[in-house]
Amino acid sequence: MSKGHQGLFITLEGIEGAGKSTHAAYVADLFQQHGHEVLVTREPGGTAFGEQIRTILLQHNTLKINALSELLLMFAARAQHLSEVIHPALAQGKTVICDRFTDSSYAYQGGGRNIPTAQIHILASLVHPHLNPDVTLLFDVTVETGLARANVVTEADRFESETLEFFTAVRDVYLKMAAAEPDRIKIVNAEQDLDSVQADLRQLLEHLDLW
Amino acid sequence: MSKGHQGLFITLEGIEGAGKSTHAAYVADLFQQHGHEVLVTREPGGTAFGEQIRTILLQHNTLKINALSELLLMFAARAQHLSEVIHPALAQGKTVICDRFTDSSYAYQGGGRNIPTAQIHILASLVHPHLNPDVTLLFDVTVETGLARANVVTEADRFESETLEFFTAVRDVYLKMAAAEPDRIKIVNAEQDLDSVQADLRQLLEHLDLW
Repeated sequence: MSKGHQGLFITLEGIEGAGKSTHAAYVADLFQQHGHEVLVTREPGGTAFGEQIRTILLQHNTLKINALSELLLMFAARAQHLSEVIHPALAQGKTVICDRFTDSSYAYQGGGRNIPTAQIHILASLVHPHLNPDVTLLFDVTVETGLARANVVTEADRFESETLEFFTAVRDVYLKMAAAEPDRIKIVNAEQDLDSVQADLRQLLEHLDLW
Repeated sequence: MSKGHQGLFITLEGIEGAGKSTHAAYVADLFQQHGHEVLVTREPGGTAFGEQIRTILLQHNTLKINALSELLLMFAARAQHLSEVIHPALAQGKTVICDRFTDSSYAYQGGGRNIPTAQIHILASLVHPHLNPDVTLLFDVTVETGLARANVVTEADRFESETLEFFTAVRDVYLKMAAAEPDRIKIVNAEQDLDSVQADLRQLLEHLDLW
């Protein structure tokens, strides 16, 4: 059910329009069906404090936020999310399914906004020195598909109104991280229809022997 | 008038009730009288983004913010303040008078909330690797006087409703920093009446030969 008394920490990553929220709910179902106590959460957000930060970040260009400020804000929300939600749930043996975590910072603020990887690493070491996801599901779609889907669903927020180039850089960092850490980061082809993605997810999670 | 083409960076520090805002206006006047172009600003705040952060931070315990989150939030606001306000003004040769800067993080989040100095130092190096205040005016009052004055002026905000112990720790860190960096940090006895503080300020700044 879980690794000793500490729960599993599963993160979901991908660019806009990869369908993470839908997939998060499905992954949660699968774990619950196998007897896990599951907590689904997301970043930025996941706490009252984090949701306030999320609101600031997603504002339509009304504020021009410096890239380093954005990064620090993400980690401020993350530190709160960890202390208030993630660490307590893991300590109770729950399986935590988190929509975005530090890999998003590497992809978005690193790849997208050109913040040096070393600086992001400094913050990750400061904020969660002893925690890394057990498994990261990277929902991969082409930038064209992702943006086309995202624009249908919600009004474009600040992130979604970035250029194609930005999202291409974000996706590239995700794929490079997956190549560098194949044991942790599993690529799911999210270009497919929902049934096929879910079939792949079932097979993948069964194969990983997590339940 | 200024060090070459780069303006002077003056910061004001002290616990609640030390009278920093009043003194900031007076210090600005003195520099202006000596022909400086002056910009007065404050932290947290100083930008639209920073003011939003300030609002989150000063909320009455409605959110229990983790100490590390608070620290990261302060530095997020600081990074924006630097890029949007402080660096441009200094580059234009202006004298920037800033009500609170990184010393506040050492005093409040370090002394008050027990965050290790090394962690604050990491963030300071990340956010302003090449900038340090030219002069820091530390307005020193006893905790009793400071809190008594602050409570008269404004409704107690989150910081002001902290315990006496907290502010004693904050003041101690300020005084230790001043002892360690006597060339930069100048203690002003803010326990005195306003006229005496202003007389001391005039004498101090004249002696420092900044104009």
